[in-house]
Amino acid sequence: MTADIESPKRVAIVGAGVIGAAWAARWLLRGVDVAVSDPSVNAPRIVSQVLDNARTAWKRMGTAPETEGKLDFCESIEAAVSGADVIQESVPENLDLKKATLKQIEGSAELKTLIASSTSGLKPSLLQQDMECPERLVVGHPFNPVYLLPMVEVVGGELTSSDTISRAMAVYGAAGMRPLHVRVEIDAFIADRLLEAVWREALWLINDGVATTQEIDDVIRFGFGLRWAQMGLFENYRIAGGESGMAHFISQFGPTLSWPWSRLTDTPELTEALTLLISEQSDNQSGHHTIAELERIRDENLVDIMLALEKNQWGAGQSVSDLRR
Amino acid sequence: MTADIESPKRVAIVGAGVIGAAWAARWLLRGVDVAVSDPSVNAPRIVSQVLDNARTAWKRMGTAPETEGKLDFCESIEAAVSGADVIQESVPENLDLKKATLKQIEGSAELKTLIASSTSGLKPSLLQQDMECPERLVVGHPFNPVYLLPMVEVVGGELTSSDTISRAMAVYGAAGMRPLHVRVEIDAFIADRLLEAVWREALWLINDGVATTQEIDDVIRFGFGLRWAQMGLFENYRIAGGESGMAHFISQFGPTLSWPWSRLTDTPELTEALTLLISEQSDNQSGHHTIAELERIRDENLVDIMLALEKNQWGAGQSVSDLRR
Repeated sequence: MTADIESPKRVAIVGAGVIGAAWAARWLLRGVDVAVSDPSVNAPRIVSQVLDNARTAWKRMGTAPETEGKLDFCESIEAAVSGADVIQESVPENLDLKKATLKQIEGSAELKTLIASSTSGLKPSLLQQDMECPERLVVGHPFNPVYLLPMVEVVGGELTSSDTISRAMAVYGAAGMRPLHVRVEIDAFIADRLLEAVWREALWLINDGVATTQEIDDVIRFGFGLRWAQMGLFENYRIAGGESGMAHFISQFGPTLSWPWSRLTDTPELTEALTLLISEQSDNQSGHHTIAELERIRDENLVDIMLALEKNQWGAGQSVSDLRR
Repeated sequence: MTADIESPKRVAIVGAGVIGAAWAARWLLRGVDVAVSDPSVNAPRIVSQVLDNARTAWKRMGTAPETEGKLDFCESIEAAVSGADVIQESVPENLDLKKATLKQIEGSAELKTLIASSTSGLKPSLLQQDMECPERLVVGHPFNPVYLLPMVEVVGGELTSSDTISRAMAVYGAAGMRPLHVRVEIDAFIADRLLEAVWREALWLINDGVATTQEIDDVIRFGFGLRWAQMGLFENYRIAGGESGMAHFISQFGPTLSWPWSRLTDTPELTEALTLLISEQSDNQSGHHTIAELERIRDENLVDIMLALEKNQWGAGQSVSDLRR
């Protein structure tokens, strides 16, 4: 960790589902104390399971700390956020619930505390509407599994201060992540716009009987998914354009945008029948593994992919190197 | 290679741009003789460069053959396809050109020859319209770099025989690939539907000044792109749904489909200004590397990712193991 990066001493996690628990695990493995608050009786079990997964992954990655941070389960939001340098809110994706939670957080947080929301799509301007000190609220949208994937989208609302954005970027850097400042505030930010586009098209393919969940997944993981683990959409297309470059590629590929290919101009209705169909296909595809097994397989693959990229000092592999500093 | 897989002795490549050249390289490295036909003066150079890249990659992957197939450059389509067991057409994406090329191919090909088109989106029913023996035409749509990515979409047209589909599946298996039979014939098949959805949304993000090519690529390669190199959309979401499964995930995520998030219901116009903007951003992002350097970096990363997955006997890693048989 470089000296110019702001490293918190104590982080509060409000809401400990899969995302909140993984935030807790990442910070603990960075040696930072974590206070967790979640009213659910399942929360301690979820945190414990996710932390086990994260420990196994970081051990495999060779980035496990000499001393983990200390984990505290708190009875209330107030107790958790008191004394925290950074508060990460990860309650369910419901605007009213999030606003009420942020109000409660604000009541007990010190004024200097950074307050971040894990929302995957709600605008921070909406979240901060009723806050007394809205300038310190920022969105920090991570990607599952949060203890492995480096990306976190940092989004400010109309009332967020530029100092808050800078602090958030530094704080997530200290967590060993790759924060991206989403400069324009839009619903769903950047990643979930792209993901929703794929999701919607995939639903049509299933709805129309063209492909199953397994077939769609195979097309991704034996095809362009391998490309995207290391270069994104545009860098790959730049290569596809060859020496004549992006403009050439666009001139070739661009016109197909107006072809009647896509069903994206409409949204499939998620009827009970379609939901059942997807569930059944997913069971056929992955049902021979428990979720815990799938998590273990995913994490082993992700760690080994990131280690492979570290060997080449490229992309997410550089984030692994950052964790070793 | 297992005994039940049909391995061609001689493959004809008609059209040797980046895709055709990479098909040639894959077959040569599988020890199969390849005859290439392409009227462009650049074709021999492109084939030579792509073959060099492929050799380097397969050496790194540990799958280089003891003896490569023999490469013949032919003066005409007739000369190339004569005596070939499999013909792979990879001329530019233009229906009339492809139809004329297929007619020419058919005139010299033996009746038993499998004829495959690399088209990324044209329906085989259109391609085979004017053919005399349309039953042996199939689409075999590969993914760049064809000598590394295992996926190939196999699509039959209305007149394609089921025997042709079976042969194509076996032939691509012999090439060490993971053929997927796209059971329903639709424009753009499966992968390019998903890719076009992302491309379209990405264009909006750039057009609206929300994100640059670099920012979009980073969100992918430090985020969900890492997931997709080993599990696809649905298997990852199955995990996200947790023990309550896909139906639970859909009930959480599904409703956002009707939120006013996406710009997908419209298509951005690829004006000169937008094309220039994308080109400039791409230059800023990747212009410090030549295309040749980017290809090398991409291939090294892909090989190391696939080797990492082979260690875990998962996904594309199993395709690497298949190449060793």
